[in-house]
Amino acid sequence: MKMRGFSASATAAGVRKKDRLDLGLIYSDVPAVTAGVFTTNLVKAAPLIIDMERLKQGVSQAILVNSGCANACGGQAGRKAALKTGALAAKALKIPENLVQLASTGVIGEPLNVAAFEKAMPELVASLSPDGFAAVAQAMMTTDTRPKMVERSIDVGGATVNFLGLAKGSGMIMPNMATMLAFVVTDARIGFPELHRALTAGVSHTFNRITVDGDSSTNDMVLVMANGLAKNPWIDDQTPNHLAAFEAALTAVLRDLALMIVADGEGASKFITIRVSGAKEADDAHRIARTVANSNLVKTAFFGEDANWGRILAAMGRSGVRFDPEQVDSAFNGVTLVKNGLAVGGDAEKSASQALREKEITVDITLPDGKANDEVYTCDLSIDYVKINADYRS
Amino acid sequence: MKMRGFSASATAAGVRKKDRLDLGLIYSDVPAVTAGVFTTNLVKAAPLIIDMERLKQGVSQAILVNSGCANACGGQAGRKAALKTGALAAKALKIPENLVQLASTGVIGEPLNVAAFEKAMPELVASLSPDGFAAVAQAMMTTDTRPKMVERSIDVGGATVNFLGLAKGSGMIMPNMATMLAFVVTDARIGFPELHRALTAGVSHTFNRITVDGDSSTNDMVLVMANGLAKNPWIDDQTPNHLAAFEAALTAVLRDLALMIVADGEGASKFITIRVSGAKEADDAHRIARTVANSNLVKTAFFGEDANWGRILAAMGRSGVRFDPEQVDSAFNGVTLVKNGLAVGGDAEKSASQALREKEITVDITLPDGKANDEVYTCDLSIDYVKINADYRS
Repeated sequence: MKMRGFSASATAAGVRKKDRLDLGLIYSDVPAVTAGVFTTNLVKAAPLIIDMERLKQGVSQAILVNSGCANACGGQAGRKAALKTGALAAKALKIPENLVQLASTGVIGEPLNVAAFEKAMPELVASLSPDGFAAVAQAMMTTDTRPKMVERSIDVGGATVNFLGLAKGSGMIMPNMATMLAFVVTDARIGFPELHRALTAGVSHTFNRITVDGDSSTNDMVLVMANGLAKNPWIDDQTPNHLAAFEAALTAVLRDLALMIVADGEGASKFITIRVSGAKEADDAHRIARTVANSNLVKTAFFGEDANWGRILAAMGRSGVRFDPEQVDSAFNGVTLVKNGLAVGGDAEKSASQALREKEITVDITLPDGKANDEVYTCDLSIDYVKINADYRS
Repeated sequence: MKMRGFSASATAAGVRKKDRLDLGLIYSDVPAVTAGVFTTNLVKAAPLIIDMERLKQGVSQAILVNSGCANACGGQAGRKAALKTGALAAKALKIPENLVQLASTGVIGEPLNVAAFEKAMPELVASLSPDGFAAVAQAMMTTDTRPKMVERSIDVGGATVNFLGLAKGSGMIMPNMATMLAFVVTDARIGFPELHRALTAGVSHTFNRITVDGDSSTNDMVLVMANGLAKNPWIDDQTPNHLAAFEAALTAVLRDLALMIVADGEGASKFITIRVSGAKEADDAHRIARTVANSNLVKTAFFGEDANWGRILAAMGRSGVRFDPEQVDSAFNGVTLVKNGLAVGGDAEKSASQALREKEITVDITLPDGKANDEVYTCDLSIDYVKINADYRS
């Protein structure tokens, strides 16, 4: 891939701990059209509030991201600290302050170590390179066990348009606090309205399918920067084919990143797809899938490789959706366990338990009420999830 | 305590496993005014549907309860099985079938072993005794580690009125599936409207404070039987003092049982009270308390004895309640950790971590928005919770 005009770098700044990559920088040679979506949590970390203000202009040139500290719940001091780190980056990059986007992840309520940023900034800027993105993906990690990076290219009117995406996310079991950061850079030439629309639509089919309405961290964000250096024909409503290709590629990048987050969920041993079909309304399908995907009892059963379909029906029953329990079918990895709300019996449960030994499990829930479908992605709830979250700060 | 006119018994019927008490019977010498509240889950177990129909008459004379099988998601066969067990009890007790209330707890989706009921019924009825309640409390247990029983007496117009309550509940971490059963018998003389009102009000301040709206099992129920044999003056709106005393006593019994369930939560090592004060509306206080109490990340932090107040603020932020994060105070067992949304610093966190080594923890969350208060009771999320629920059926 030959991405044009973006570079990146990372360093071990010592934001909270020594000797691990914890500060990353992404830079575009020219100001880039930038769209973002941010947590709906009422309690927003300082960097997000600044970013949301700055993105009203729809343009940015750099993203500065740190792990080790969320810079949330720090009041005016937290805001000042965030502004200061942005100013340091702007000065070193020789760009206006308001073109710097800020992102933090880590412990809530601790002050940001601005001195660490100050000391690291010269080297961070000096080492910017087109090959620096993998290091940024590492610097963003908290309880992630592996960095998450995706590349993709498409043709737009004869020009190659490239995408590179980075994400961090430490768990989807309780996604509200497992801060999720994702950054996508593309050399596509596209206007802000189209970029924003593509991002919003893409997120709704990807990151919003691994998260729950309102279950959002103080720091969650997805940013996409498009610097136009691919010099493709403008992507807009006049070129519906180009727009569709761009949206599909962006959504694919977001989906890959989202699924990587689930697969690396805190303590996860299984990747689980809850697929609902035949619901009356799209929202019904989503609510059922989401309620089942978030049930601790369903998740612990998967960890135990127990084909406990009763817990799935019970979770459905408290989803708030009206349905007839005696018309529900359900299958685990294609093995039908429940037909018209009743256990099919025979060897089905044994076969289903076999299926649950797989790493990837798809639960199909079929209703006879309509044509609406949805999928939600999750993972199991394991002993390691509890260990990780009981020990997170130690 | 000299409870009049109630007896009970339990036996090891072999409903699912051998040699453990799993079938219990409660009997009143005379038909008793009976009120009940039942799960709001759309998927209701067969015995509940039958009970709800029968309780339209507001009277019953016996409760037959089993563990080992929830008799949920069993369709018409499940309903027939439940009716058959009720008929067996009615015949042996020589009372009409529709005076028998049925309750089941255990695995969902497996058929009820009616033969075990049939075989056990003669002995179960023959061994009814005023001292049999403790055995019933044992027979109701699933993953409970101890039986739950409460006694209480009050004076009503010169007559002693007695209450005896039993409950089972295996976990409040995800209360929706940890079936909660509670039965209270009293020899009070009281009419159905007053009894029903007292039960509903009492439950809203007790069991509904350890559970979440809509988070209910297929089998949850609370029943209260009042047989009138205390011969107290009628408790009704003409005697507001008596009514208040009755309501207070019933609520106290329900609260004791509810708190016993939390304290015996699956894998619980801590009993946690989330207390919100100064909210604008009662519903705001409840939603904040409930959201914090249900956060897996808050619960795992308590298991880890980590004074991670940032997770509490973040959970508050996704509760849907509007508040100013920079006006929140919070204390753990009286140690103020957060003042105006900021860490107080100094030794506070160390003192709070000390406080978290206690078995009972009260988290105070104080807002400046009004006079509404609420409390929700919960427990920590431990490694044992996962173990118990991954292995529940094995």
